[in-house]
Amino acid sequence: MKRKTKPLIALLTDFGVQDWFVASMKGVIKTICPDADILDITHSIRAHDVPSASFILESCWRDFPPGTVFCCVVDPGVGTGRKRLASMNETHFFIAPDNGLLSGVEATSEGFLAFSIENKDFMHKGFGATFEGRDIFAPAAAHIASGVKIDLLGPLCEKFIRLELFPVQKTKLGAIKGFVVYIDQFGNLITSVTFGALPKRKDFSCVALKIKTRKIIGISDAYQDVKPGNLLAYWGSTGRLEIAKNRGNAAESLGMKIGDTFTLRLPASRKK
Amino acid sequence: MKRKTKPLIALLTDFGVQDWFVASMKGVIKTICPDADILDITHSIRAHDVPSASFILESCWRDFPPGTVFCCVVDPGVGTGRKRLASMNETHFFIAPDNGLLSGVEATSEGFLAFSIENKDFMHKGFGATFEGRDIFAPAAAHIASGVKIDLLGPLCEKFIRLELFPVQKTKLGAIKGFVVYIDQFGNLITSVTFGALPKRKDFSCVALKIKTRKIIGISDAYQDVKPGNLLAYWGSTGRLEIAKNRGNAAESLGMKIGDTFTLRLPASRKK
Amino acid sequence: MKRKTKPLIALLTDFGVQDWFVASMKGVIKTICPDADILDITHSIRAHDVPSASFILESCWRDFPPGTVFCCVVDPGVGTGRKRLASMNETHFFIAPDNGLLSGVEATSEGFLAFSIENKDFMHKGFGATFEGRDIFAPAAAHIASGVKIDLLGPLCEKFIRLELFPVQKTKLGAIKGFVVYIDQFGNLITSVTFGALPKRKDFSCVALKIKTRKIIGISDAYQDVKPGNLLAYWGSTGRLEIAKNRGNAAESLGMKIGDTFTLRLPASRKK
Repeated sequence: MKRKTKPLIALLTDFGVQDWFVASMKGVIKTICPDADILDITHSIRAHDVPSASFILESCWRDFPPGTVFCCVVDPGVGTGRKRLASMNETHFFIAPDNGLLSGVEATSEGFLAFSIENKDFMHKGFGATFEGRDIFAPAAAHIASGVKIDLLGPLCEKFIRLELFPVQKTKLGAIKGFVVYIDQFGNLITSVTFGALPKRKDFSCVALKIKTRKIIGISDAYQDVKPGNLLAYWGSTGRLEIAKNRGNAAESLGMKIGDTFTLRLPASRKK
Repeated sequence: MKRKTKPLIALLTDFGVQDWFVASMKGVIKTICPDADILDITHSIRAHDVPSASFILESCWRDFPPGTVFCCVVDPGVGTGRKRLASMNETHFFIAPDNGLLSGVEATSEGFLAFSIENKDFMHKGFGATFEGRDIFAPAAAHIASGVKIDLLGPLCEKFIRLELFPVQKTKLGAIKGFVVYIDQFGNLITSVTFGALPKRKDFSCVALKIKTRKIIGISDAYQDVKPGNLLAYWGSTGRLEIAKNRGNAAESLGMKIGDTFTLRLPASRKK
Repeated sequence: MKRKTKPLIALLTDFGVQDWFVASMKGVIKTICPDADILDITHSIRAHDVPSASFILESCWRDFPPGTVFCCVVDPGVGTGRKRLASMNETHFFIAPDNGLLSGVEATSEGFLAFSIENKDFMHKGFGATFEGRDIFAPAAAHIASGVKIDLLGPLCEKFIRLELFPVQKTKLGAIKGFVVYIDQFGNLITSVTFGALPKRKDFSCVALKIKTRKIIGISDAYQDVKPGNLLAYWGSTGRLEIAKNRGNAAESLGMKIGDTFTLRLPASRKK
C-alpha cells in the first residue's frame, strides 16, 4: 500500500468528549507519531452501539485519503478475552476490538486482512487493564501511521466476528423487505435498500413503501418535495434509501429502531 | 492575497457531530489538500439557523490568520436551485451556500467578492445530490486552500442574498432601538448596539435599557457587579452590548429571541 | 526542557462548542504560531467547575509528548484581579488563570514553576476585557509553543492558589476515609483512594466499601463481574479506585457528588 507522506489518524469512539479519555488517546498518538494529523469522526456513538459504529465507518472510510488509519473503540467486551484487530484493505488501515465493528468496512472492501494485536512492544504502559483505547488501540494506530508494518503487531487472524448485516430480501408476495440499518441524529432512517440493489429505472414515482401502518408513494429528490410534517423517501448520500419526515423526526414518529423492517413494492417498469 | 505556507480550513455547519457528515467533509478535504490543517468553528448551529451562522462567522473570522478558508454549510435550500458561493475579502476566503450566511462577513469586510461555484472539475463525485457539504463545499475549500485561484471555480456573482442585518435605529422619542442578534449557549443576549455606534463618553452609568417590562440601569464591567439572579448589560468581546443574568439564562428569563427589540436611553453627557 | 520540533497545544475550557469562543482562541493561536497542532481535551467542563478541570488535566497530561503546551480556561474570576499563570514542570507547559486549576498537575509534577503573565507584548488586542481566553491565555500558549522563553511573559510567581486536594485519611476506627474527586459523564465516581496508597497485597476480595447506606465487597476487574444494576468498585485507568454501577449511573443512584465521602475497610492480610 502506498502511503501519504503525512500520517493521518481518524478516531471513532463512544467515549464522549466530556472527560479526558479521547485526550489521552490523542496524547499517546502524538507521543508515538508526532507528525500525525488526528481527525475525529465522532465520539458520540451511543455506549456500546457497535452496529452504528460499523455503519458510520462504512459510510465515510472511502472519503479519506489512502493510508489513513482509522482507530475505532466501541468496546463492550473490554476486560474480557476478545481479540484486538489491526486490519487493512487495499487502501486504508483499521484498528478496532474484535466485535464486529469492522463488518461494514469488510463488506465494502477488497483485500481485507486482519491481524491480532499481541506484540507488547507496540503497546502503551498505562495503569491497569481497563483503558485499552489509550494503551492498545491508540498506540497500534500511531505505530502503523509511523510506518510500522501491520504484521509486526501480531499474527494473521483467520476468524473474526462479523455482524449480521441486513441483506435485501424478497417477501413471498414479491415485495422487497428492507431494514433500518442506522438512525441519524435528526431521526432519519437509513435503510438496507441500496440504489444498486433495485432494478435500474428512470422513474421511481410508483414505488410504494409500507412502514408499519404508514405508506409512502414515490421517491423524492429533496425534503421540500413534501409538506412539513409529511414523510418522504429519498436516495441518501451513501446510495441508500432513507426515510425522513420533513421538519420532523421520522424515527420517533414511526417508532422505528435499528433492525426494524418495512416493505417496498416496485411495480414492473413499462418500456418507454 | 498573500498566502500562509500552511493551508488552514475552518468548518462551520449545522451537521452535529454524532454522524459521519463532518468526517466525510474532512476526509474529502485531506484527500484534495493533504497539508491542510482543519479546525472546527462549530457544528452545533441549530438546524437551518442561517442568521446565527452568519453572526458566529462575523464574530471570529478576523481572529484567524490571513489565507484561512472558511467552509460554512448551513443550507436549508440544498436540493433547490440556490447558488453556491466561493468568496473572498482582502484577507480570507469563504465558501457557503448563497442564502445570506456570508452577510455578517461582507458587512465587516473590505473588498468582498463572490464567485458562483460551477466548475465540475473542482467537485467531488459522491453518490446523489443531497450532500453538497461533501461534494461541493468541502472540495471548493480544499482546492482554494491548495492554491487554486478562486475565479477558476466559476463566474463572478454580482447578486447574492443578504440577510437584513439589524441596524441601530432611533425611536421617535430619541431613544435607541436595539435588536437581539444572537443568543449564546449560556442564554446571553448579544445585541445590535455596538460600542462604536454610541456617542463617545467615559461614563455609562446613566444608560437605561428597557427590555419588555424590565429595566437595567448602567453598563457593568463584569458579571460580579450585580447579585446572582440579577440582569446586567456589559460590552462583550466583539464590541457589542450584551444582556445577561448573573448565574442565569437571560434569554429564558426575559423570553427573548433573535430579532426581538429593546430600547436604550442615553442621557446627554455633561461636559466635565 | 527539550522541545519537540512540532509545536502542540491542548485546550481545556468550559466554553462549550456551540459559539465562536473556542474558534477565536484557535484562530489567535494559528495566527501567532502557524505550525502549531491544536488538540481539544474538552470544552464541556461544567461552567466554573475548576476542581473537575484540575482533575481532568491531572489525569491526562502525562499522556502528551514533552513540550506540549496546555491552555486551560475555566475562569469564574475573569474581570477580577486574579493573576494569570504561565507555568511549567520538567516536561510540559501549562497556561491557566490563578484559581487552582493547575493544582492537580502541580501535585503530580516535579519542578513545577509558575510565572505571572503580565507582558503585554504577548497579548492579543481584542475588544474589551471579558475574553481573556482569546486575548491572554491563547496568545501566551502560542508564544510559548513558538519558542518564547516562559520567563519573558512575566515574573516568577511565588504564591498561587491551590485547591484543597483530597488526601487519604484514616478514621478513628482504622478505616480509610475516601472522597469523590471526579464524576465522569457515565456517572462513575472516581475517588481519592489510589492504588499506591493501599498496602500492597494480591487479594482485594475482602475490601469493604461503605457508601452512604450501601456496601460493596471486593474490588472487581471488570464491569461484567457484577450483574447489571449492581454496584462495583475497580481500579480505574489513572490508578484510582472507582465506583460504578454496571449499566447504570452510580452518582445518580447513590446521590453522590464531588467531595462526598465513603469509608473503605481493609482487613489485615494473612501471610501466605
